[in-house]
Amino acid sequence: MPIEKIKQSVRDIPDFPQKGIIFKDITPILHDKDLFRISLELLAEKVKKVKPDYICGIESRGFIFGAALANILGLGFVPVRKPGKLPYDTYKKEYSLEYGTNSLEIHKDAFHKNAKVVLIDDLLATGGTAKAASWLIEQCGAKVEEIIFLIELSFLKGRSELVGYKTEAIITY
Amino acid sequence: MPIEKIKQSVRDIPDFPQKGIIFKDITPILHDKDLFRISLELLAEKVKKVKPDYICGIESRGFIFGAALANILGLGFVPVRKPGKLPYDTYKKEYSLEYGTNSLEIHKDAFHKNAKVVLIDDLLATGGTAKAASWLIEQCGAKVEEIIFLIELSFLKGRSELVGYKTEAIITY
Repeated sequence: MPIEKIKQSVRDIPDFPQKGIIFKDITPILHDKDLFRISLELLAEKVKKVKPDYICGIESRGFIFGAALANILGLGFVPVRKPGKLPYDTYKKEYSLEYGTNSLEIHKDAFHKNAKVVLIDDLLATGGTAKAASWLIEQCGAKVEEIIFLIELSFLKGRSELVGYKTEAIITY
Repeated sequence: MPIEKIKQSVRDIPDFPQKGIIFKDITPILHDKDLFRISLELLAEKVKKVKPDYICGIESRGFIFGAALANILGLGFVPVRKPGKLPYDTYKKEYSLEYGTNSLEIHKDAFHKNAKVVLIDDLLATGGTAKAASWLIEQCGAKVEEIIFLIELSFLKGRSELVGYKTEAIITY
């Protein structure tokens, strides 16, 4: 039951980053070489089916899984970053998230036209981050073939923000 | 000449993030599946010799290389993060960097005592970030066996901050 083991190793942190929020701490998964490897294998199985040209990962924890997946599958990796971090010409998108607002950027030359992209992040909460990242990928002329998360907090109904996108998660709460 | 190819694909961005700084943009390396794979292979060769227990990566670009390396080598991955991002009990270290000051945090329970750690980041500039991350690793009771960068800006003399640590880089400017 590798999925159960991964699920059990996620650490609940109450009142982080704000009172009333129970934060899902994934560092115990990363820390355990077997759980990290298995998590990536489970994600890779899903990504493989889509045969994408690129993996796109959302800063910062999406980099951890996204970059490792790109390497496992022999794909290029494109980072979607917090504002002011990407040095070349960017598209920018503001969005609201579980606690506050934020914005993301992507390099305008990140993809060739109609490139097939799988978007990776560690956690689906309200869906705002993934929706903004998807918009950015599309601004570049590429296609979001699928959005894949390690964890989905289904009670936050993030999928309702991602209608029209194929969305999957390995672990669901 | 894979190293030359990687070096040629790094994009110089003048005056980013501040006037007078020429930023080394590594996104073209990540974007190209072969260059990304070869970069990781070159890094992995160096890490392998040390036989570490963990890879530690510095947020955010160190996550890209560090997490992929941990997976390639079958190791656990420990993130050193910007302040306020790690949800559990942390050690914190302030430091000065090429443009301004910053701080980093690590989970106090990130390592077992005497764990062998390789610290990974994309770029060695003035060395302040890597020095702070090394201090944090040592606070946890672990040992920094080596610090490995993809790129070293040798004219910034970052190694002088890292005296006492074995330090290597794949590409040097």
